[in-house]
Amino acid sequence: MPDILMGVSRAGLKESGDPDLLVVVLPYTCPASFMFTDNFFKAGSVIYSQRLVQRKGTVRAMVINSGNANCGTGKEGVKHAEMMGRKVADTLDISPDEVLVFSTGVIGRPLPIDRVLSAIEDACSILEPLDLERASRVIGTTDSFPKFDFVRRGSLEAFGFAKGAGMIDPSMATMLAFVFTNADLSHATLKALHREVCERTFNSITVDGCESTNDSFGLIALGEVRADPEEVRRVVGEVSLSLAKKIVEDGEGATRIIKVTVKGASIGIKAREIARAVARSLLVKTAVYGRDPNWGRILAAVGSTEFPIDPFKVKVYIGKHLLYNGKPHPKAESMAKKYLEEEKEVEIVVDLREGRKSWTYYSSDLGYEYIKINAEYRT
Amino acid sequence: MPDILMGVSRAGLKESGDPDLLVVVLPYTCPASFMFTDNFFKAGSVIYSQRLVQRKGTVRAMVINSGNANCGTGKEGVKHAEMMGRKVADTLDISPDEVLVFSTGVIGRPLPIDRVLSAIEDACSILEPLDLERASRVIGTTDSFPKFDFVRRGSLEAFGFAKGAGMIDPSMATMLAFVFTNADLSHATLKALHREVCERTFNSITVDGCESTNDSFGLIALGEVRADPEEVRRVVGEVSLSLAKKIVEDGEGATRIIKVTVKGASIGIKAREIARAVARSLLVKTAVYGRDPNWGRILAAVGSTEFPIDPFKVKVYIGKHLLYNGKPHPKAESMAKKYLEEEKEVEIVVDLREGRKSWTYYSSDLGYEYIKINAEYRT
Repeated sequence: MPDILMGVSRAGLKESGDPDLLVVVLPYTCPASFMFTDNFFKAGSVIYSQRLVQRKGTVRAMVINSGNANCGTGKEGVKHAEMMGRKVADTLDISPDEVLVFSTGVIGRPLPIDRVLSAIEDACSILEPLDLERASRVIGTTDSFPKFDFVRRGSLEAFGFAKGAGMIDPSMATMLAFVFTNADLSHATLKALHREVCERTFNSITVDGCESTNDSFGLIALGEVRADPEEVRRVVGEVSLSLAKKIVEDGEGATRIIKVTVKGASIGIKAREIARAVARSLLVKTAVYGRDPNWGRILAAVGSTEFPIDPFKVKVYIGKHLLYNGKPHPKAESMAKKYLEEEKEVEIVVDLREGRKSWTYYSSDLGYEYIKINAEYRT
Repeated sequence: MPDILMGVSRAGLKESGDPDLLVVVLPYTCPASFMFTDNFFKAGSVIYSQRLVQRKGTVRAMVINSGNANCGTGKEGVKHAEMMGRKVADTLDISPDEVLVFSTGVIGRPLPIDRVLSAIEDACSILEPLDLERASRVIGTTDSFPKFDFVRRGSLEAFGFAKGAGMIDPSMATMLAFVFTNADLSHATLKALHREVCERTFNSITVDGCESTNDSFGLIALGEVRADPEEVRRVVGEVSLSLAKKIVEDGEGATRIIKVTVKGASIGIKAREIARAVARSLLVKTAVYGRDPNWGRILAAVGSTEFPIDPFKVKVYIGKHLLYNGKPHPKAESMAKKYLEEEKEVEIVVDLREGRKSWTYYSSDLGYEYIKINAEYRT
């Protein structure tokens, strides 16, 4: 793993009193590509970092606070983000143009900026090698476990850490994800690869259909190893999908990962929109929570997009169990129910039987805990 | 109230054993306009009735079963709907072309058609004057109270009954609503009026964002009174909004009606889409359930549509309490919290401050009961 450093400290933003401030320092300036939420209500830090990264396309350090989203905090929020970036730059003696700033947590509370700036000084004063697990813990909010992964193919490496457990929906999620590769890539290749990976991973997950104000997913190339871009896409895709699935697995109150695959579509966007409709359906999500192979609710979601489907032709499977192919197969239901009871990751397959395009979306079931977490999170 | 008759019986489709079959008979053939779900997975009865009503535009009788949606039941489902309509026609000696058929309940179970046909005979054998409350109870499924209303302005009358409590989202809901007026209207006027009323009432409510396979909303003109179409629009709109709000109030597990008004928009569709995004947001719905004036989640929803908004200009109110106008007003939060605790119908107002268009959407909060009802409904 390349020589990336991190510093951790406390700004007192989490009620638990746990560490809530992370500084990540790269060994040198690296090409980077970042995707941000397309919510028009962007956090101050997103407005600030998006502007920077579009201008430069490179990064040297990042600072991330959790516990406060610095969002809905007016123009002052953007100024606070800038102050955070400058503080890192000043303390480490690097250019402020290459320090990106991220925040996650409660929306609408002004950052206690003095405490945050002093925590940045603390974090920068004791730098240690990047520990993916610890980094994920520091930036986590309602997360119940840390999210990180590391993949190696020969000398090629990809690794990353993330946070996110709710408000998860395209574009992306209340999630932050940082993926690194030691590959040497041009900025143009990096950007194209990043976009493609994002579509099939972080943009294909949903927990509650709510689009966050703070989502950010970065890909940083450390340029140490020459590698085939196709091979890089594979390892980066693997790490990204692993992080995305961990976010779904940690979906607030989730007991099952739901993998929704729509195949046999005439065009890709149709497969994707229908997969998304099924993945987002509250009735499907509560049915899975109740271990109920309710393919009727799946069909209701399949038919709810703007794309016509033929209800007398479509097939619906839960796991390998065919429940509908133009007509119901009630006998398969008890097997499908058993499958829902026993498996932690359950698959719903919809075959439109009209073409060759497919898309997979990851979702989670929805139970009492989601309500508990989200009715009680702030007050 | 004009001389409308109804018959009630049991086909054994509800686990409770309560009456589940309703026949409504008009005194003569009347012009009618019906809107159906635009889900591509339509119930057999929707496919059948939609075809009929498009051809004729008139109705003489309706048969409605609850407890079984007759959906996902293949081509046999359409045939069963036709058999139901013909049975009513034969028994009452009227034209089968003027008998509409509706179903609501569980998706994907074949109708026990013999029992249904014999229940139709029973219902037709004892006709009594239409009782709106009883009619609503018979067609209800997870409904916890009957939904009906009656409005009179001079000699002009509008009245109706409905069912629906979940799977509520445009277009419409798992809902059936039948509204009648004694006004004399041409078919063209009736259709235009119906569409307009539907947009602002049944198409502006959401409970769980799930679009049903069976939604139907009919408007029938009995032609007994000459009236100004504008006046008819008002009374029909009043009854329809009243029924729509009752459906939201009965939203599965709901404890609050949430009235979301977006004003100050440059174009109507923008006001509507943003109101819809707020009304659908699970994070907003769970916050209201937790009596948390979490305007940050409201802003996140406001910013999540394809319509740009200016986060530094928008105002957000809960009740009369201004919580955000480009920056937070933390002092108003305790008053807003009290308002959420005390009122049964709570209003969220978003002022985009860019134009004069507005739209109101009705939603409900989301609590533990929703999960309970939907995780356990079928199994």
